[in-house]
Amino acid sequence: MNAVRYELLHECKQTGARRGRIYTPHGVIETPVFMPVGTQATVKSLTPEDLKEKVNAEIILANTYHLYLRPGQDIVKMAGGLHKFMNWDRPILTDSGGFQVFSLGALRKITEEGVEFKSHLDGSKHIFTPESVMKTEEDLGADIIMAFDECVGYPATYEYTKQSMERTTRWALRCKNAHKNVEEQSLFGIVQGGMYKDLREKSVKDLVEMDFPGYAVGGLSVGEDIETMKDILNFTTPLLPKDKPRYLMGVGSPDYLLEAVLAGIDMCDCVLPTRIARNGTAFTSKGKVVVRNATYEKDFTPLDDECDCYTCKNYTRAYIRHLIKANEILGVKLLSIHNLKFLTNLMKSVKIEIENDNFGTFKEEFYKKYGYTNE
Amino acid sequence: MNAVRYELLHECKQTGARRGRIYTPHGVIETPVFMPVGTQATVKSLTPEDLKEKVNAEIILANTYHLYLRPGQDIVKMAGGLHKFMNWDRPILTDSGGFQVFSLGALRKITEEGVEFKSHLDGSKHIFTPESVMKTEEDLGADIIMAFDECVGYPATYEYTKQSMERTTRWALRCKNAHKNVEEQSLFGIVQGGMYKDLREKSVKDLVEMDFPGYAVGGLSVGEDIETMKDILNFTTPLLPKDKPRYLMGVGSPDYLLEAVLAGIDMCDCVLPTRIARNGTAFTSKGKVVVRNATYEKDFTPLDDECDCYTCKNYTRAYIRHLIKANEILGVKLLSIHNLKFLTNLMKSVKIEIENDNFGTFKEEFYKKYGYTNE
Repeated sequence: MNAVRYELLHECKQTGARRGRIYTPHGVIETPVFMPVGTQATVKSLTPEDLKEKVNAEIILANTYHLYLRPGQDIVKMAGGLHKFMNWDRPILTDSGGFQVFSLGALRKITEEGVEFKSHLDGSKHIFTPESVMKTEEDLGADIIMAFDECVGYPATYEYTKQSMERTTRWALRCKNAHKNVEEQSLFGIVQGGMYKDLREKSVKDLVEMDFPGYAVGGLSVGEDIETMKDILNFTTPLLPKDKPRYLMGVGSPDYLLEAVLAGIDMCDCVLPTRIARNGTAFTSKGKVVVRNATYEKDFTPLDDECDCYTCKNYTRAYIRHLIKANEILGVKLLSIHNLKFLTNLMKSVKIEIENDNFGTFKEEFYKKYGYTNE
Repeated sequence: MNAVRYELLHECKQTGARRGRIYTPHGVIETPVFMPVGTQATVKSLTPEDLKEKVNAEIILANTYHLYLRPGQDIVKMAGGLHKFMNWDRPILTDSGGFQVFSLGALRKITEEGVEFKSHLDGSKHIFTPESVMKTEEDLGADIIMAFDECVGYPATYEYTKQSMERTTRWALRCKNAHKNVEEQSLFGIVQGGMYKDLREKSVKDLVEMDFPGYAVGGLSVGEDIETMKDILNFTTPLLPKDKPRYLMGVGSPDYLLEAVLAGIDMCDCVLPTRIARNGTAFTSKGKVVVRNATYEKDFTPLDDECDCYTCKNYTRAYIRHLIKANEILGVKLLSIHNLKFLTNLMKSVKIEIENDNFGTFKEEFYKKYGYTNE
């Protein structure tokens, strides 16, 4: 039996948005879900208890490229895998490193075999192939592992996107053949094809034939405008099988999350909530607040007066602003807790509204209050 | 009645070390106590709950100089004082800013009136006088506030040390006269006099005549060797009244803490445990461990196998090393929790050993195992 299994609980009659459940070796995930990113085997500034008790995170991500380079997959494996290494007993998903490797630009070279690249840390040379990445992800030991793909940037020509998508498909098959421990880890395929619908359709068709236990939509939110993104997402997602989880990679702003759910996506991840925390910015029910700004110097109210998170219950904007201005770690932590809990709370509402066949109305009301922003 | 009151519970028959209790408006402190430092209204990387539940901190420090400059005493006052501002409901002690101001070197000028200095943040000009510092410390609202003193460096001539000590004494009186809310905050005097015993004796005599509710020994651990420090400390401390708490400023290494207790000190503070955490260093029962070193890369044991702290119960040296190498905040936090809990645990043992009239033996045994280091 596959390590990971999806159960569709309900489709919103108003929108078709999906309410479901993902069963994994480390527990059940209620979907749609936002997954915090722990790039280097830690969600920046938070303990596992913070993630469980203060954020209610059901699953987190870790990055294969970063962990391959540091501390190295051998050390994580010796530790007993990522769960034990980082003291996290809920589900983990590892990406394939493809996104990071392709982001290296001049530092990498693509061949049919795989990608040669130089480490951003010390310039040392490495090669990722579908087979090597499967080995790395097996050593890391996440519940869900991603196939090695090329994430094409924006804009890209039809010809390049086609060649790349076809290679990604061939790599997906090599990943599937290389991946053995299917009862402990489930391998998801990644749909590519850029902003070209026929390529997306072909990508889905070929991947679905390989019968992965889950599918991701990659190559979106890479610089295109939101209308293009929505267009491709809304075209691609319904092509995917209904009985498998669907994961939109790299999306984490509240508005994009809602668009993803509307399209029928079940899982999203992004570094945004913790990255903007480091810049002193908070999501709130009325839009983003840059709490490091001088205007909050004497503001003794919480980040978001509608929020029930640890940060909002105990600290004021004035204190958090002070911490951020003074480069105090606690400021980043308090903002990270809030931003992640904001998304957890948002997804909690989303789940209820889907169950109530009211997701479309909810989304419009949220936008009206939050302000529709294009991250 | 004074805000702060000391009760001597027991003197170790072997050594004379004191076991006592300090009553404050925000609760009782069991002494001897080590006080973590929260320079900018946060003990770096820790939440108040971490300090209570993971460190068992009974009192923390905050720095007047830093908070005066940023966020400013008016903002802390508007927030309802430091306790509310930082969400900490146990006792707080604020230093007087003297140590920081005198550390500014060329950026400050001393007169009888006070000290003119330039902010290390933006070069802006400021003046601290005994009266202004009392106002600042009242606005900050700590339970224990310190008199404005000059902390003389090492070495210093007899003549300079004498003049400075006499000025510190005059400033102490001005502080006492300026300090009004004695039922909410208690003002401690600070003994100076450098490495000269007759000056220390005179300083104690003059301060004790002013009848402060507590006394600090300042101007030690400023660069002198440990034998000189012990000599001056052992000479000075017994001159202080038995019925008042005695605070040795700026001491936080395990060996110096034990020397302080041996001399009859009740309270110590230092940034050391959190500062060395940021450098990847841990106190352990067998001496310091620089966990960022390569030798711990594959060490899957806890920082200290005799430690019961959150960090040691849940994380390995290999993981903490990875976090520190990867500049992850969690690494600093885990080490800070451990280092502070190590000192809390040490002081817990110290209290028991004093009660058992066994502190001298305990100290020798601790040194044998820990290794006597000169921080």
